[in-house]
Amino acid sequence: MRKEIHERIDQLHQEMIEIRRYLHQYPELSFQEEKTAAYIADFYENLGIPYQTKVGGNGVIATLKGGKPGKTVALRADFDALPIQDEKDVPYKSKIDGVMHACGHDGHTATLLSLAKAVQPFQDELPGTIVFLHQHAEEYAPGGAKPIIESGALDHVDAVFGTHLWATTPLGVMQTSKHAFMAGADRFEIVLQGKGGHGGYPHETKDAVVIGAELITKLQQIVSRRIDPLKTAVLTIGIFEAGNAFNIIADKAKLIGTMRHLDSSIQKQVIEEMEQIIKGVCMSNGATYTFNYLKGYPPLVNHEEEAELVRQACENIPEITSAEFVPPVMAGEDFSYYLLDKPGAFFFTGAQKEGNDIPHHHPKFDIDERALPIAAKTLFEAYLAYQNK
Amino acid sequence: MRKEIHERIDQLHQEMIEIRRYLHQYPELSFQEEKTAAYIADFYENLGIPYQTKVGGNGVIATLKGGKPGKTVALRADFDALPIQDEKDVPYKSKIDGVMHACGHDGHTATLLSLAKAVQPFQDELPGTIVFLHQHAEEYAPGGAKPIIESGALDHVDAVFGTHLWATTPLGVMQTSKHAFMAGADRFEIVLQGKGGHGGYPHETKDAVVIGAELITKLQQIVSRRIDPLKTAVLTIGIFEAGNAFNIIADKAKLIGTMRHLDSSIQKQVIEEMEQIIKGVCMSNGATYTFNYLKGYPPLVNHEEEAELVRQACENIPEITSAEFVPPVMAGEDFSYYLLDKPGAFFFTGAQKEGNDIPHHHPKFDIDERALPIAAKTLFEAYLAYQNK
Amino acid sequence: MRKEIHERIDQLHQEMIEIRRYLHQYPELSFQEEKTAAYIADFYENLGIPYQTKVGGNGVIATLKGGKPGKTVALRADFDALPIQDEKDVPYKSKIDGVMHACGHDGHTATLLSLAKAVQPFQDELPGTIVFLHQHAEEYAPGGAKPIIESGALDHVDAVFGTHLWATTPLGVMQTSKHAFMAGADRFEIVLQGKGGHGGYPHETKDAVVIGAELITKLQQIVSRRIDPLKTAVLTIGIFEAGNAFNIIADKAKLIGTMRHLDSSIQKQVIEEMEQIIKGVCMSNGATYTFNYLKGYPPLVNHEEEAELVRQACENIPEITSAEFVPPVMAGEDFSYYLLDKPGAFFFTGAQKEGNDIPHHHPKFDIDERALPIAAKTLFEAYLAYQNK
Amino acid sequence: MRKEIHERIDQLHQEMIEIRRYLHQYPELSFQEEKTAAYIADFYENLGIPYQTKVGGNGVIATLKGGKPGKTVALRADFDALPIQDEKDVPYKSKIDGVMHACGHDGHTATLLSLAKAVQPFQDELPGTIVFLHQHAEEYAPGGAKPIIESGALDHVDAVFGTHLWATTPLGVMQTSKHAFMAGADRFEIVLQGKGGHGGYPHETKDAVVIGAELITKLQQIVSRRIDPLKTAVLTIGIFEAGNAFNIIADKAKLIGTMRHLDSSIQKQVIEEMEQIIKGVCMSNGATYTFNYLKGYPPLVNHEEEAELVRQACENIPEITSAEFVPPVMAGEDFSYYLLDKPGAFFFTGAQKEGNDIPHHHPKFDIDERALPIAAKTLFEAYLAYQNK
Repeated sequence: MRKEIHERIDQLHQEMIEIRRYLHQYPELSFQEEKTAAYIADFYENLGIPYQTKVGGNGVIATLKGGKPGKTVALRADFDALPIQDEKDVPYKSKIDGVMHACGHDGHTATLLSLAKAVQPFQDELPGTIVFLHQHAEEYAPGGAKPIIESGALDHVDAVFGTHLWATTPLGVMQTSKHAFMAGADRFEIVLQGKGGHGGYPHETKDAVVIGAELITKLQQIVSRRIDPLKTAVLTIGIFEAGNAFNIIADKAKLIGTMRHLDSSIQKQVIEEMEQIIKGVCMSNGATYTFNYLKGYPPLVNHEEEAELVRQACENIPEITSAEFVPPVMAGEDFSYYLLDKPGAFFFTGAQKEGNDIPHHHPKFDIDERALPIAAKTLFEAYLAYQNK
Repeated sequence: MRKEIHERIDQLHQEMIEIRRYLHQYPELSFQEEKTAAYIADFYENLGIPYQTKVGGNGVIATLKGGKPGKTVALRADFDALPIQDEKDVPYKSKIDGVMHACGHDGHTATLLSLAKAVQPFQDELPGTIVFLHQHAEEYAPGGAKPIIESGALDHVDAVFGTHLWATTPLGVMQTSKHAFMAGADRFEIVLQGKGGHGGYPHETKDAVVIGAELITKLQQIVSRRIDPLKTAVLTIGIFEAGNAFNIIADKAKLIGTMRHLDSSIQKQVIEEMEQIIKGVCMSNGATYTFNYLKGYPPLVNHEEEAELVRQACENIPEITSAEFVPPVMAGEDFSYYLLDKPGAFFFTGAQKEGNDIPHHHPKFDIDERALPIAAKTLFEAYLAYQNK
Repeated sequence: MRKEIHERIDQLHQEMIEIRRYLHQYPELSFQEEKTAAYIADFYENLGIPYQTKVGGNGVIATLKGGKPGKTVALRADFDALPIQDEKDVPYKSKIDGVMHACGHDGHTATLLSLAKAVQPFQDELPGTIVFLHQHAEEYAPGGAKPIIESGALDHVDAVFGTHLWATTPLGVMQTSKHAFMAGADRFEIVLQGKGGHGGYPHETKDAVVIGAELITKLQQIVSRRIDPLKTAVLTIGIFEAGNAFNIIADKAKLIGTMRHLDSSIQKQVIEEMEQIIKGVCMSNGATYTFNYLKGYPPLVNHEEEAELVRQACENIPEITSAEFVPPVMAGEDFSYYLLDKPGAFFFTGAQKEGNDIPHHHPKFDIDERALPIAAKTLFEAYLAYQNK
Repeated sequence: MRKEIHERIDQLHQEMIEIRRYLHQYPELSFQEEKTAAYIADFYENLGIPYQTKVGGNGVIATLKGGKPGKTVALRADFDALPIQDEKDVPYKSKIDGVMHACGHDGHTATLLSLAKAVQPFQDELPGTIVFLHQHAEEYAPGGAKPIIESGALDHVDAVFGTHLWATTPLGVMQTSKHAFMAGADRFEIVLQGKGGHGGYPHETKDAVVIGAELITKLQQIVSRRIDPLKTAVLTIGIFEAGNAFNIIADKAKLIGTMRHLDSSIQKQVIEEMEQIIKGVCMSNGATYTFNYLKGYPPLVNHEEEAELVRQACENIPEITSAEFVPPVMAGEDFSYYLLDKPGAFFFTGAQKEGNDIPHHHPKFDIDERALPIAAKTLFEAYLAYQNK
């Protein structure tokens, strides 16, 4: 059966690419993925595999009960896109202005749909149950994983596996970790309220541009001086906006950013340090502020045994030339919630285009589509290995 | 005649207010003031005073030749508005979203139109010629004054006077200076080009938000350490924009601002210091930049004799309780170009609302409309005084 | 008599130079000028002119009562030196390590002593009384002028004149002002208390070097953004000291500096802004501070009539080719206290060495010694002019 | 024999304390430890154990050849002190102004000397050879370890062990690591050359205090933005010195500091980033610089087997309640050189005073002297365990 499923996955490669490219052209932002969800639901409708929609939001869950006894294993793919302008020069370039699948979720979806199609003919022979978990809104906290779990839709699941096509890992390489594998990723917004006025009269104002600049510079000290140098924290201001006329001193500045960590005690400390710094900077400028800190996804910590299962399962996939344990990456993933709830593991499927170093979230991001069937096989093998655990 | 014209100005007060409020509701941004120009032209059309339109852009110039010999005196009013959201709660609040007469140019226009209407019946008795100079685009360099002068429309003019309704000067007070009265006002735009990337991987990027913040902080040293403390320079960054996703490190930052000075040697030094600082900041960050510095209006320097004429002319206006020489203000004015070309003087007409300290360019800016006839009378008196000089 | 005194001053030029060079080799810091004071006293002792020592500290005052009726005029010279290492390569280079007459007070003293010697033979012909006022401690607030005044030693004086040899004003030029001529000069000391520790454990400390650096950068905003750009303030940190081992994080930082202003309302504002900034910076770092602000000499404001007297008196001195009114200089002078107490004026005697642009307080500071007799003659003429006022 | 040696170590406890306290009162700075070296030599002289002095500087090496065959094991103790003012209120407080044993090297020395005295009576029964390695100058790069190795004095040694009394690890706890255990520790010195001048004339200077402050703030970005957040780097400026008069703008600033890392590729990157930043900051200020970076001790990386030997050896010491493998500490240690040359391991002996959290290099640093015999026993057991390896 395994051999036949692998072959069928290979036969579906072209369709997988078509699905991925179709989705690539019609990306949807987090929490707005209605058409994509409908596309996924249609796919299962056509296959005749039972599914639920609107799970915890735009989530779609299809369930294939195998003919043999066994455990219930969820395989997860996310399907939302990013607010980035696609700058690639390819036929399947995004048709939606300012929105782009710059992280590979289109490929995840194509992989999981095709895997469902690949295994369905072998339903009677399959042990246990496969849950095809199509999750919305991975890119934007609070994310889709949490409401899906809270919906109870996974209560009966024994383990969860998932993969990310990884554009900076070479084709044929599988990467995972037995411990922390991906970072906690939070979102915050700081609004500084100074006092606006005429550009020639700074002494009658509290210049929000200058206050904001001071704050950004000062926040660097959290990582450089206040966090244990053996611990990890990343504090990024992604957006700074202030002012709307060159000759008017801005009365307010907005700073929006993200904090990454691998350890919740660091998260707690950074929030406190930020508050202290913002407060002091405002006091020294006679300004006021609002500081909204949205705790995002917790760090993604794999389960040791399931991570080892995935690594061993790769031995059954000839296209995988290396299955490695690696240090954590600083990107966040709300797959972490599944792992707080159930055993499981998350892994990267190498999808780097040859000679290409363009990272995720870049306007020219792309993947090597030969990675799609590899990802499908690895997910399938993980499910299978878990049955025999 | 003087007495009768003063009386007629007073009679026109209600109409003046109506004109001002109408314009206040339909403000137009600099260089886009087509409807306002048409309104002004219509007004002169209705009066039957000959006028030219499209002078140096959207400028409108009407000419009233008096019945007696004398000199040609231009009286100037500007008519553009600002990109500010009107936040006043009054019936004549701006109807145009994000655009507002936050500097009183509506009042200038109402004043000058009404003055034309007031003096017209006395045309035969008037000495010399009055040029009603309605100038577009004062708020945005390169401004309207320069192209109007270059159009040749003022070649035959002997002197130019103009006023600004001034919301922080009490009603009944006229302010001017025999020397520098308003600042040189320049506009610049700096674009810093770093390298974008994923918010969790700062070491693979050159974070434009952090570079921009550093630059803003560093630019403070120009005024604090590099300019002669007895000289005047103001360096304001009105707009700072960088990034468009909280979790993506921005690849570029845009800083747009203004520099104010009273002395062209300071202007030269500041430009050089800015270039040096931007260059050094970019070098230390491995970033690149573009720096566009648009020299704006030169400092407005009144002509000594004409300023004295205005001050003395105020003695004929009982509503003016104080006519003062004051230190320069840091706002810019392209009236300065007229004074580089012709004799003349610019002055402030106190228009402060009682108990109100809201400055120009503020979302709640407003004027005491009783200042309108006072401004009209002072302009008229300046014209008259110049005839007898 | 005038002509003869001028001639005698010229004859004493060589001795004047010798006195100046002797003092130049043996400079003494403010409030420690005991040997210099003794040298001055000896000089008057030898002349037989009555004098007092220890006036308000190390001050020495000699009094020459003329034979004719008239007013009592004090002529002031200061005699302290600076904590600067003399780096000149001249035979009269300072012999005291780290101490130098880098401001010309040696020349002032030589000038005044020689003037006393020059006029003494004409005592019977002199109108009124000349008070030779040798003041200690001009360089270091609270200075010597204030205690000298408070000692009552000048109670009987009608007017006070003084000069400063000015190394950046050409020989033959006299400069003064009818208004503010020199700045208010204050001294402050900020001690930031963080928390020290091992250089590899920043997170267990509050790094006083980083806090101090932040404060210095932040203080730039007072001048760049908070002070009226038409007003004058200079905020200089002359000394920053923190830490004493490369691998130990400093627990405290000391910042010592000066603030210059021309207007006491600015002084008040700067002190308040400094306090607010220091407080906010410490709050944002969890540090504490002490802030001692010593109001130094007030701005030196000449008396209008006496300044005019000095200017006119220069017409009697052929060596003076130009007597000018100039804008204020940002250096401080405790001569200001005399002018708050008595009529008088302070002026600069040009002493620039040809082709030399080295400023005061520089390790290579020097003067053109031909300025000494010019200074003596100008002081003498000021005394004489005041008699005839 | 083991039991008897343990007992003899316990009997020597009081003498150990006396030695430690004597050394504590007479600390000597790195490379100046002549009296301490003489004290150590005297001790071996009195015991009659052969020793060498002046090994690689002030090092002292004593050698005890056991009566039985075996390997040669060096046990190392360092003996220099720090430029810190002792602020403890104890009878054995440092008698040397500004110098203090604030890191426990006095205890290391007392431990090793006493161990020599303890084992000497059992010389005939001891296997192999014990080398008592007393190293000077651990606190200040380039340190004493390197020249001692280069002297050839350890050529015949088979393994090296050493311990650090650790004031923040509880008594009875032994800590070590099988991998990186202590950081690479470098020293650098930056001199910024601006242009000095009078405190009231900033525009004629290039203010080294402001430039230095800017540099310190800017250097924070290396750790916060430029280093891989999963890697470790600490950049500390321990000393900032600029200026020597409050009213003179400083012409130069000196910054002296340390960089800590666990990985030589990070060391390389930090040096390059520092150079780039210093260069850019100087360019933007028209200043120049010198940058001397002295690569210090490499990271201390234990040998896996020897670290495990030490851990197991602790089972023979009842006072040790816990023997742990721990993450690296950011302090540097030139013991790292021995481990690049020979097998061996370094470990911490818990020496925390109860209820005391004062870290190393603190003016109130102290140890629990009950740790001394524990350290002696652990070193002895390590030697013994290595014989049986």
